[in-house]
This record gives sequence, C-alpha cells and structure tokens, in this order.
Amino acid sequence: MNKKKIGIIGATGYTGSELVRILKNHPDVEISLITSESRDGERFSDVHPFFQGIEDQKLRSINQIGEFDLDLVFLALPHGVSMDFVKKHHNKSFKIVDLSGDFRLQSAADYEEWYNMEHIYPDGIKKAVFGSPELFRSKIKDAKLVANPGCFPTSAILGLAPLLSHNLVEINPIIIDSKTGITGAGIKSNPVNLFSNVNDNFKAYGLKKHRHTIEIQNILDIVADKNTMVQFTPHLLPVDRGILTTIYVRPVGKMDENKLKQIYSEFYDKAPFVRLRNQIPAIKDVRGSNYCDLYISYDERTNMILIVSVIDNLVKGASGQAVQNMNLMLGLNEQQGLNMVPVNP
Amino acid sequence: MNKKKIGIIGATGYTGSELVRILKNHPDVEISLITSESRDGERFSDVHPFFQGIEDQKLRSINQIGEFDLDLVFLALPHGVSMDFVKKHHNKSFKIVDLSGDFRLQSAADYEEWYNMEHIYPDGIKKAVFGSPELFRSKIKDAKLVANPGCFPTSAILGLAPLLSHNLVEINPIIIDSKTGITGAGIKSNPVNLFSNVNDNFKAYGLKKHRHTIEIQNILDIVADKNTMVQFTPHLLPVDRGILTTIYVRPVGKMDENKLKQIYSEFYDKAPFVRLRNQIPAIKDVRGSNYCDLYISYDERTNMILIVSVIDNLVKGASGQAVQNMNLMLGLNEQQGLNMVPVNP
Amino acid sequence: MNKKKIGIIGATGYTGSELVRILKNHPDVEISLITSESRDGERFSDVHPFFQGIEDQKLRSINQIGEFDLDLVFLALPHGVSMDFVKKHHNKSFKIVDLSGDFRLQSAADYEEWYNMEHIYPDGIKKAVFGSPELFRSKIKDAKLVANPGCFPTSAILGLAPLLSHNLVEINPIIIDSKTGITGAGIKSNPVNLFSNVNDNFKAYGLKKHRHTIEIQNILDIVADKNTMVQFTPHLLPVDRGILTTIYVRPVGKMDENKLKQIYSEFYDKAPFVRLRNQIPAIKDVRGSNYCDLYISYDERTNMILIVSVIDNLVKGASGQAVQNMNLMLGLNEQQGLNMVPVNP
Amino acid sequence: MNKKKIGIIGATGYTGSELVRILKNHPDVEISLITSESRDGERFSDVHPFFQGIEDQKLRSINQIGEFDLDLVFLALPHGVSMDFVKKHHNKSFKIVDLSGDFRLQSAADYEEWYNMEHIYPDGIKKAVFGSPELFRSKIKDAKLVANPGCFPTSAILGLAPLLSHNLVEINPIIIDSKTGITGAGIKSNPVNLFSNVNDNFKAYGLKKHRHTIEIQNILDIVADKNTMVQFTPHLLPVDRGILTTIYVRPVGKMDENKLKQIYSEFYDKAPFVRLRNQIPAIKDVRGSNYCDLYISYDERTNMILIVSVIDNLVKGASGQAVQNMNLMLGLNEQQGLNMVPVNP
Repeated sequence: MNKKKIGIIGATGYTGSELVRILKNHPDVEISLITSESRDGERFSDVHPFFQGIEDQKLRSINQIGEFDLDLVFLALPHGVSMDFVKKHHNKSFKIVDLSGDFRLQSAADYEEWYNMEHIYPDGIKKAVFGSPELFRSKIKDAKLVANPGCFPTSAILGLAPLLSHNLVEINPIIIDSKTGITGAGIKSNPVNLFSNVNDNFKAYGLKKHRHTIEIQNILDIVADKNTMVQFTPHLLPVDRGILTTIYVRPVGKMDENKLKQIYSEFYDKAPFVRLRNQIPAIKDVRGSNYCDLYISYDERTNMILIVSVIDNLVKGASGQAVQNMNLMLGLNEQQGLNMVPVNP
Repeated sequence: MNKKKIGIIGATGYTGSELVRILKNHPDVEISLITSESRDGERFSDVHPFFQGIEDQKLRSINQIGEFDLDLVFLALPHGVSMDFVKKHHNKSFKIVDLSGDFRLQSAADYEEWYNMEHIYPDGIKKAVFGSPELFRSKIKDAKLVANPGCFPTSAILGLAPLLSHNLVEINPIIIDSKTGITGAGIKSNPVNLFSNVNDNFKAYGLKKHRHTIEIQNILDIVADKNTMVQFTPHLLPVDRGILTTIYVRPVGKMDENKLKQIYSEFYDKAPFVRLRNQIPAIKDVRGSNYCDLYISYDERTNMILIVSVIDNLVKGASGQAVQNMNLMLGLNEQQGLNMVPVNP
Repeated sequence: MNKKKIGIIGATGYTGSELVRILKNHPDVEISLITSESRDGERFSDVHPFFQGIEDQKLRSINQIGEFDLDLVFLALPHGVSMDFVKKHHNKSFKIVDLSGDFRLQSAADYEEWYNMEHIYPDGIKKAVFGSPELFRSKIKDAKLVANPGCFPTSAILGLAPLLSHNLVEINPIIIDSKTGITGAGIKSNPVNLFSNVNDNFKAYGLKKHRHTIEIQNILDIVADKNTMVQFTPHLLPVDRGILTTIYVRPVGKMDENKLKQIYSEFYDKAPFVRLRNQIPAIKDVRGSNYCDLYISYDERTNMILIVSVIDNLVKGASGQAVQNMNLMLGLNEQQGLNMVPVNP
Repeated sequence: MNKKKIGIIGATGYTGSELVRILKNHPDVEISLITSESRDGERFSDVHPFFQGIEDQKLRSINQIGEFDLDLVFLALPHGVSMDFVKKHHNKSFKIVDLSGDFRLQSAADYEEWYNMEHIYPDGIKKAVFGSPELFRSKIKDAKLVANPGCFPTSAILGLAPLLSHNLVEINPIIIDSKTGITGAGIKSNPVNLFSNVNDNFKAYGLKKHRHTIEIQNILDIVADKNTMVQFTPHLLPVDRGILTTIYVRPVGKMDENKLKQIYSEFYDKAPFVRLRNQIPAIKDVRGSNYCDLYISYDERTNMILIVSVIDNLVKGASGQAVQNMNLMLGLNEQQGLNMVPVNP
C-alpha cells in the first residue's frame, strides 16, 4: 500500500510536536508537510531540538500547501486561526482534523458566548463531526472535517457517557473536578507556566467560565438527549502531562457497584483505548499513551456515583486521538501507530 | 515573664520537626523535652540533620517525662498510641495538644467504625475540645486536652463553617474534593510516598472511606446543628506541602456573590489566620505559614456555590494550628510565634 | 522469520518493567517468560498496574526456566544474585544479557574491593563482554554472556572514549561530575527515594567510593591502554529518569574545538544511538529513548575540554542498551525495536 | 532604639520579594519605601499576592526617594540599571547594598569584557566593598556601598576561601561544578524558565562564559593573593531555590581529611551562618534560611580535595546576605532578623 500523505499545519506547539512523535512510528503514513509561519525555512528540529536526527525536514509556509498532494491535514493552530483555514480550504481534496476548539461546539451562538469571538464559518460547525471515536465512530469514518475534542472534555465525556446514554443519573448539577498538567496551557511563556509559579504548587482557575464547560455540556446533551447542567472546575498540577477528572453524580434510581461496572464494560466493549481499571488510576499510568483509564465507584453511604478518569492530555487528549481519528477517516486500522506503552515512571 | 516549658512527644515525624521549627522562634516558650522511643539518646539533629547547630538537644524516652516540669505537651504520635498516653497522663498538671486523630471524633462508635480500632479512653472524647480556634476559641482557652484538627478537615471546615452556621446550603451531599501534598502521608517509606510514584503524577485515593470524612461531618453537624452528608475525596499531589480543597454546595434560597462574601467577612472578622483572598489562592501562597486562604464564588448559571480553601498541611493543618491552640491554652497572644511569612517561591 | 524467544529474569524492578515496555513493540521477539520469586503466580500487570491490558502474563519462578526454549534471557536481578544465576546456567543454550554489576569489572579483585563481596564465578568475568556496542560491537555479536554497562558508566565512557582512544588528554585526574534521576536508586522504598527527600531537592552522594568509579576506570584503561585515574561524583536529581554527566579533562597537546568535534564525529560515525548535538542537551531530550546525546566544547581561556553527556538511565543506561545488545547477539538489526522518539515534555 | 528606615528599590523580582519576607520579621528596621517603575501606584501585594494582609503598602516611583529619610537602600535592580542609580545617589546620606553585578568585579575592564557593557561609574568599583561578611566583615562595617555577592560566587567562594587563603591547593584549574534552582534566572517569563522545559529535566548552560566565572576568580585572586584559573559550569535544576556547588582541587602538598576539617573549622569559627556539616548536605537543608552548609572531603586514592557547598540562592545567595550586610553596616547584631529555620520538607 502506498503511504498516505499527511500535513501538519502549525509546528511550534506541543500538539504539533506530539503529532510528529506519533506519526514517525506510524507504518502507513508519511509526513509530507509541516508548516510554521513564524519559523518558516528553519528545520523542525531547530524548533524542537530533541528531534535532531529524527525529523529534520524544513518547515514551510501554509501558502505552499498547494504543492503537496495531501490525504489529510492536522490543524495544530490556535482557535480563530483554524476556522479561517477551514473556511478557505474546505473544498480541497484533503480531509481535516482540527485540534482547536473552533468546530467542537454545536452552535455559533455558544461559540460566540464562550469564546468571545464571532464564528466566521458556521457551516463548518454543521459539517464537522466531534472526534470522539468511542461515541461517533461511524460518523468519523465518513467525515471530511473532524473537530478533535478538547483535553478536559475527552476525560469528562468518556467518564460520563455510559451513565448519560442510559439516563441513569441526575443531570443538574453534574460536578466535574479536573486537574491538568501544564502543557494544557500551551508552549508560550507567561506567568501561568513559569516554573516557579507551578512547581510544588497547585491552584484552581477558570472557575465558572472555562470554555470546556460548554463543550462538555453540548456533547452530554447529545448523549443524554436532554439538557444537562455541567459544573466544571479545572486545576493546574505541577506536572507536564496528564489529566485526572473526578466526577460526582447522583443516580436517579437504585444503583449498585456491580451494575455500574457492567454498564461501563458493555459500553466500552469495542473501544481499544478505554481501560476499565481494577485500581484507581494515576496519570502516569497512561503517560505517553493513547489510553483513557476509568475507575468506577458507587458510595452506598451517600448514594453518589464517583468516576475517576485519566488521560495524557497531549495524546488521548489531543494528538493521539487526532491520529485515531485519522486512522478511521483514512480507512486504516484504528489502533495503527498508537501502540505506545505508557512511560512510567 | 518566665518562659513556658513545652514537651514534644514524638520527634521523628514531620509534625514533630515542624513544631520545633516554629517553637525555636517563639519568644514565650522553651522546648524542655523532646521524646522518641526509637531514637532515644540521639540528638534531635541526628534525626533531622538540617537542624544541626539549631536544635541539638538529646532525645529522651517518654518514661522520663516525670523529670520535667512541663506546662504543655504536644503529642506527635500515631493514632492509637496517643490515646494510650492521654489515658495515662490526663491527671498530670500539663495540658495536652494531641495532633493525632484519637480525640477528634464525637463518639467512640464513630471512632471504632472509621478507625477499625477500639477506643480505650472514651472519657477523653468527652473532655477533649476540637482545636479549631476560629470555631471554638473560648472553649480552647479553658481546655486541658485539645484534639488538634486533621489537615483535610481544617481546610474543609473553615471553607464551610460560615455557610452551615447560617443554614444557607443544602447538606446532602456536601462535595469536598481535596488535593494534598505528600507529607500528609507521613515520613515512613513505602510505595505510596516513593518519589517515582508521586513525581509528575497525580491520583485519587481513599474514595468513600477516608477517615477525615467522618471528622469533617461530625464538626459540620455541630456547626449546622443537624445531620450533614459529606462526600470527601482526597487526591495526592506531587508537592511536599499544601492542601487545596474545592467545595461544591447548592444554596437553599436566593444567593449572590456579594452576600456570600459579606457572610464570610463577618464570620472571620476576628480570625488573624484566615485570609479572604481577592484572587484564587495557590498552595504556595501559604507555604510555611499558618494562613488558611479562602476564595468564595457563586455561579449564577448553575446556582452553585464554589469555595476554594488552601492551607499548609504541616502548619495550619497540623503544627501551626497546634501552636495557635497552645497560645490560647497558656494565655498567650494567639499570634505569638506564628508570624511566618509564606515562603514563595 | 520465527520470533526469538526471550526470558526476563526479575520482573519487579524498573529495568524489568522497561524491558517489557520496549520488547512489546519489538517485531522480532516474543516475551516467553517473566520471572519473579516474590510475586510468582501473579500477573505482570498486578506488579506494574499500568500494563493492564498490555502485558498480563503470569509471573513464574526461575525454577520453571527449563520449560521454555529460550534464545536469550535478560537478568534484571540484584548484583550477587546475578552471578549465581550465570554460574548455574552458563552451559544452557540461551544467551545472557546481565543488567547487574556482577560481570562488568575486569577482575574479581576489583569486584571484591568495590562491592565488598566475594565473586563466586570469576570465570564469568573472563567470558563476559562489556556491552557497550559503540566500543565492542563485534565482540558482542559473538558473545554468549554480555555484561550490560552501568548507567553512569554508559554516559561517562561514551563521553570520553574518543579522547582516550587517541590519547589526547591527561588521565590523572579525569573529573566526572554526574547527576542522575531517582530511578537509578531502584524501586525499593527507603529514605533515599522518599518523595519529600528528593522533591525540590538535590544532593551529592557516594563521594570517593561509588562502585561505578571502578567500572568507568576499568573500561577507560582498556580504551586508553594505560592506567587512568577517575574522580567520579554522583548527585541525585529530583527527576524520574535521566543522567547528565559533565566531564573535565585537560588536553595533552594543542587543541581546538573544530578538531575536537571532528574526532567525535568520526568515532561515532556508525553509532545510530549517539547524537552529537548542536546545542547543550537536556535530559528530557532523550527521555524514553535509546539516545546518548553528546556536547563537545573546548575552553581556550583555561585550556580545558568540557564534555556534556546525556542518557535516559533506564533506556540507554539499562534496558534499551540491553535490547541493543540482544539485537547484536541474535543477529538482528541493531536498531530494531529501539526507534522510540523521546517523550518531551 | 528607633527603627532604621529602609528602602527597597525594585519590587517586582524575587530578591525584592525575599527582602520583604525577611525584613517583615526584623525587629530593628522598618520598610519605609518600596519602589517599582512598572507597577508604581499599585500595592506590593498586588504584585506578590501571597503578601495580602502582610505587606500592602503602595509602590512608589524611584523619583520619590527624596521624600524619605532613609538609612539604607537595597538595590534589587538589573545590572546596568544599578550603576546608574549608584552614580546618581552616591552622595546621599543613605548607605547602599547593591544586589546586582555592577560593583562586584574588581575592574571596569573585566566588567566590560564579561558583561558586554560599558561601566559608567568606575569610581564606584573602587569604593564598593564585596559583601561577603565571612571574608570582609570589618570593611563592610565601614562601607557606604556594598556589592552583594552573586549566588554562585557565594557558594563557591565560601567553599574555597580557607584553602586558598592558606595556599594549600593548585590554582589552575579550579573546577567548580554548580547546580542551581530556577529562581536564579529571574522572574521574567521566557523559554528558559517555562515549567515544561525545567520540570523533570536538567541541563548545563553558559559553558565557559558565565559572568560569575570572573566574579569568583576576582575574589579568589584576592584571597589567594595570586592569579587563579577558574573553570565554572552552571547547571539548571528543576527546583525553585538552592545551589549546590561541587568543587574539585588538588592539594599542593600532603593532605589528609582531619587537617582539612581543622582548617575549615578555624577559618569559620566566628561565622554564624556557615555550618560545617557531618553529612553531605542537600539544598533543602538550608531552604529559606541564611546558612551556607559545607562538606569537606579528601580522596586519598586520587589525591584530590572535594568540597560540597550548599546555599539558598535567594537568601544567603542574595537577600539574606544583603540583610546580613545591612546589619553590619548599620551597627546591628549580624544575625538579627536572620534566624529563619530551614523549611524542610
């Protein structure tokens, strides 16, 4: 089989770098193009020096995209910039996996409220498939444009979907307490990701108004087929990678732990990257891998369901899930190139 | 004024070491006795080498306590061992601040259920005052035995007391999601506190059954004067010190953020170590100090109250609060010796 | 081609776990046997839970080794135990890569002096090949027993070999200042690897007497063909993985930086895992990978040569180099299964 | 006694913040003025929020300095800016402790070579006393302008002074391998101090050309009364605070460890902040305190002297030593306000 030709639009951030890390060992694709407007003409390994000798190809401008006969492009661009690219290129022959937030929400109105920005390509919202393979696998296979889920939403939605799809829990409020590594904040230097502000430290942020709130709520609404109310609080961990999400919901009827585990087991029967764990997982249990580990628990004393969900925010929460979507969109084996064993410790 | 004579029973752990760190700069007391059964005869600085030249006194056996004319002793002992000491010495002239969990619960029945151990001195439970100065200051002043609060309970109770004392929130469930530094797990080496298991990592533990659940619930019951239902989940941070607790409660009537802040402001008007913060606090904001920092928030969209509470688990969550209690019990200025500015970064 | 059958003797430590991580993605081998005396009968993923669903095979006792028709075994055993195994099994048909220190030194006398233990199988010392492929590739191909180098020695020897093989530097003293992540200290819990003793901390240890001193000196003696004098000081970093070694040597004749770089470039021309870096490398630049990154520098002002050498102690410093040796011993492509891209950040 | 009036010029960095942390508990001084040009008019606790309720005074412009009757000012300014201030204000009545590098070198020529900048006030170099109380206590007492030593130089010079003042070691090369926490790089966000570039990482930097090389060499020249040759290599640790320096020197005559320890013991007999440690010190052993911990060792096998020196770079390496100098300059007890016990863990 000829290798599929892949483009990575936006090379300087973590998701771009992580896409290259994964795709270098993917047997069915080749990286034909990597772009960067700010570092155009330099080599990829000039921007990410640890790739010296591994990926030294020249970075190009996005304007050169026409010179390459691409099967699929990943957009590792900031939100706002992504929709511009998609609007311009949606008629091209290549498929698109967009890693930004531009096409994840279900309406331009929600986008404008939570992103404080006009959506310039609302048609794209209608066409885009939300790239959660565990929920929308068959739609993704046929999609031309996939909106790769946010990192927090990936962990929260996979933790909640089995309950909501069966209408087993109260949906107001759904309490989602998430903790993320710093790479979620991006590679640009600022006081938020200054070592001395993060190391040996911990804090909450974005109370009440983090954009992933509405993304989670939009998708849970679809899964539950009714209006949910999500209370989402992110926190910043002194670690590079990883998200752990703790979820608190109250069952609507009688519940017990066995029933609960049975429901999850059936729901994720065909999902190669969701592991139902025997122990409470830690974020290092999935580091560098595409797994989402779930731990399911019911507290009889309080009549509450507790779910712990763990991912690597750069892999299952971004570039790994993007490659999983690529595999589906290009008719490849869903697991191809994603067999990375977690790096622990 | 003559300096008060203080004993520290149990020297090898973090709370013992932290008591010495604080008391060395306390102008009104002297450390007359430090005991350790396992390191008896060695110097305190042999056990904690960074005290070389600062505190080199010999460690004694607890059996020598009769040789010292003490005003107050701190028990930095494991639970189970503490109650044995208190039972034996409760008629002595010295006052006692117990840093273990032995006298914090409100009944021997709760103790036996949550600690899986018979309580050998239930009378002590009746006599002991729960050492939260912000709630029970006047009782502490008169107490002979103070049960110094647990670290998680300190952060949770100070975050919730104003709401519960005014019956402003639903009390089933009260969701308390806490994250702690590793020193909360003690100084004894085991896989839990192995560097490679903690570093760049994060996990939940003790779901549904952590002992601090019942301690929090017992005290909230008193504050609210009714039966509450606490859902408490601790998590382990890759940091040495610090607890951040995120609290989710639903108001019973109409609420707004100004009203909320007013309530807290009045409640903690006379509390020198509770700071109502203008920004969301981080754990390093209180590191090494006796502060409890609170951030108060109301989410109109979801009609939920969010409280973020931050302490240093070894100071306000243990040895610092113990010294604060000592000050009250010995008639000293409540703030004496506790003016440590947070060490940040 | 039939897959080669591999045994891993000793499963509970980091090197055992890392061997499995690497070999799971090696196309030419299968892991036929994993042993553990302490966890015999449990699954590998019971011991290392993050392998759940990846490697769940049962652990066996070493006594069952006869039931398996193995091509090669890795010994991930403590020193002292390894030599016992080798003595007992050296006539078996399988080849052996020993990851302990038992066969690295060049004489039983050195072993007994630096390891404080009698060497029970001195014949093995004579037969064993020191498993540094960059120095002894052809010998390794023919070896039945390979002594896999220590982590510090790997970083130091690769940094110095080009200079010493050309007799370009003074050999008394050779100053080697190394800094390692904590996994070098093993998985067993003790105060040394307690999180609170390592986090936000740094210290030197083993001054003058670390066992890797003599291992480095033995091999440098061979490379230089004369007696060298190594001053080696290890330090403990608050990181999981990685060694950075800073080397200070004085040139014997005239030196300049271009000449220096030329020498290294030629020496490592055929070495797929040694990268001569354009920038000073950091340990995360090689994390999870089999690279040894070198930075070469000459200081005209002081007339000194400075070498910075970086490896992942669990990969190139242990299990990765062991697999590289396996590839050579089994006639496979030297790079097979070792194409892991560094995980950074 | 009236409290001395102190000004802190430059409030936004770590040394400014650390000066306030120390001085808040100093009984003999008051902070009359804190300046910031960029945050003029805001409160100190707006810039460093963890000071809320502790130090809320308004920041002023440097132009307002004439309104305050100051006894001493600390300059927590970048180099280049400091000399401008000193040139302008050297005739004022207040004394000056400059924490920048502007007056530490012994000649304008050295300054211009290593700082790539013209020195605009060479007279200041002549007048300034190098603020190492252990070496120049009596000069500091009489000084109007003190150049507070750099962080690396403090650790290196205190480790070497006893040897060089007795001419006991070869002086070419003196090998100084230092490892520092990130706060040494300042508070300004850039890729160097980005969390993901520092966490779980380690690297060397500034090989051959770090400015502290010449500062160390200048002072060692004075101590030894001859020209030394310093090879200094800094490395960056994933910690907030602390420097550990490992020093390698060869004795000129016969040496043994007892003699060595005797020399250090006598040299630092009157130095309250130098501790000769029984064990190898770790950086957390001095965190938050003004100690410099030294460990002295002689290796008979190699005939080399090894010194390990440890400080908190923000305290003994900057603001603490600055306060120690202030105490001497104002005729106060040298230890006043500097009794902080190390915060460990």
